[in-house]
Amino acid sequence: MSQFIVIEGLEGAGKSTVQRHVVAWLEARGLTVMTTREPGGTPLAEKMRALVKEVHDEPLTMEAELLLMYAARVQLVKTRIQPSLAAGTWVVGDRHDLSSQAYQGGGRGLDRHLIDQIKLAVLGNFAPDLTLYLDIDPALGLQRARARGELDRIELEQLDFFERTRARYLELVQADPRIVQLDGSQSPERVRADVIHCLEQHLCIPG
Amino acid sequence: MSQFIVIEGLEGAGKSTVQRHVVAWLEARGLTVMTTREPGGTPLAEKMRALVKEVHDEPLTMEAELLLMYAARVQLVKTRIQPSLAAGTWVVGDRHDLSSQAYQGGGRGLDRHLIDQIKLAVLGNFAPDLTLYLDIDPALGLQRARARGELDRIELEQLDFFERTRARYLELVQADPRIVQLDGSQSPERVRADVIHCLEQHLCIPG
Ligand SMILES: Nc1ncnc2c1ncn2[C@@H]1O[C@H](COP(=O)(O)OP(=O)(O)OP(=O)(O)O)[C@@H](O)[C@H]1O
Ligand SMILES: Nc1ncnc2c1ncn2[C@@H]1O[C@H](COP(=O)(O)OP(=O)(O)OP(=O)(O)O)[C@@H](O)[C@H]1O
Ligand SMILES: [Mg+2]
Ligand SMILES: [Mg+2]
Repeated sequence: MSQFIVIEGLEGAGKSTVQRHVVAWLEARGLTVMTTREPGGTPLAEKMRALVKEVHDEPLTMEAELLLMYAARVQLVKTRIQPSLAAGTWVVGDRHDLSSQAYQGGGRGLDRHLIDQIKLAVLGNFAPDLTLYLDIDPALGLQRARARGELDRIELEQLDFFERTRARYLELVQADPRIVQLDGSQSPERVRADVIHCLEQHLCIPG
Repeated sequence: MSQFIVIEGLEGAGKSTVQRHVVAWLEARGLTVMTTREPGGTPLAEKMRALVKEVHDEPLTMEAELLLMYAARVQLVKTRIQPSLAAGTWVVGDRHDLSSQAYQGGGRGLDRHLIDQIKLAVLGNFAPDLTLYLDIDPALGLQRARARGELDRIELEQLDFFERTRARYLELVQADPRIVQLDGSQSPERVRADVIHCLEQHLCIPG
């Protein structure tokens, strides 16, 4: 049965790079794979992404940011992820719910109970089968992201915002056996080797 | 102390017209008044309104629609309504939370507990001091709205959607003494007289 695999981590942690490794690994095993990114992943959800990512004159409240994230997520889950999984397609996501818990809960400091309530209300028990969390020092991740281009509204946050986000990620990883932590600060080759090792361990698919 | 007064009702019920009567009545009493409309009312919330109102190729899920409504609402409440009330300005709103309860709960059939949870999570106990609900037969309201111009994504719903929305409005009005029901199908003069009578009864302001 097809599965939903998610790559998580701070900006520049190497998520998009690792997503490509996971897709290649699954496709090499003859599986049909679809990729997503969050927030976004459908034309409507990408418009919500733009509202969250763009720098506006008006400050976006934390609560509106949270609800936009979940609006985009439920749109993606119901129109693309769940139908794909039901059709036997594997889905590899660049971010998913853990990001909201870490960024909105940790970074912004929103009550985690509030976030859980909204999640449960619109997504029920839907959750990834496996999450790869790429841990990285925020300063290093932001340095990588900066080298790549202009920073968006969220990437322009202060370092302590990302420190709080990372701390929450680490808490959440401890609490959930379906999340595997990898060291994103390693060389690209070492990260790739760790990813493949993790997939071999967690997914029982004949090579 | 300044108050938050909301006008509610189906499309073409006469909300925008009544909003003007309420503003005129308050201003004649020397009060400072701000108007809002929902969804919308701030530059960012108006962008969320556009996502909800425009006709898209991709169907907007009911859950994403609900979350967009609340994202726009919390943005408006926190950046404009609450600061205005705190500064002594009266606020007269064209739609507010009751619309989500009636349209998303009644029209779309979303679980009312889900809606209450989201509302409580992001808005707490914030609520209008007085709501004027303009009751109207949906067929008559849509006829008025159609005479005025092109219909948006929500106005294009079938009549039974609006029947369910009206039925929920009527239930909610029964349950809350801070909501006053007026007959929106009357002549403009009779509606105006009813509005003024209602304001005189409910707001103790020297004329
Ligand atoms: N292990 C690594 N060591 C050094 N550089 C890396 C490593 N992995 C990725 N990079 C580089 O760092 C940058 C960010 O990587 P990538 O786009 O994969 O991260 P990301 O987590 O998707 O970032 P964002 O959150 O901004 O989308 C890219 O330029 C990429 O080539
Ligand atoms: N009591 C009334 N009798 C007849 N026509 C009316 C009455 N009140 C308003 N109208 C007309 O009906 C149309 C809709 O009125 P209005 O814009 O006030 O309603 P609305 O509830 O704000 O509609 P919408 O939900 O589409 O914004 C307008 O053309 C208005 O002039
Ligand atoms: Mg990326
Ligand atoms: Mg109107």
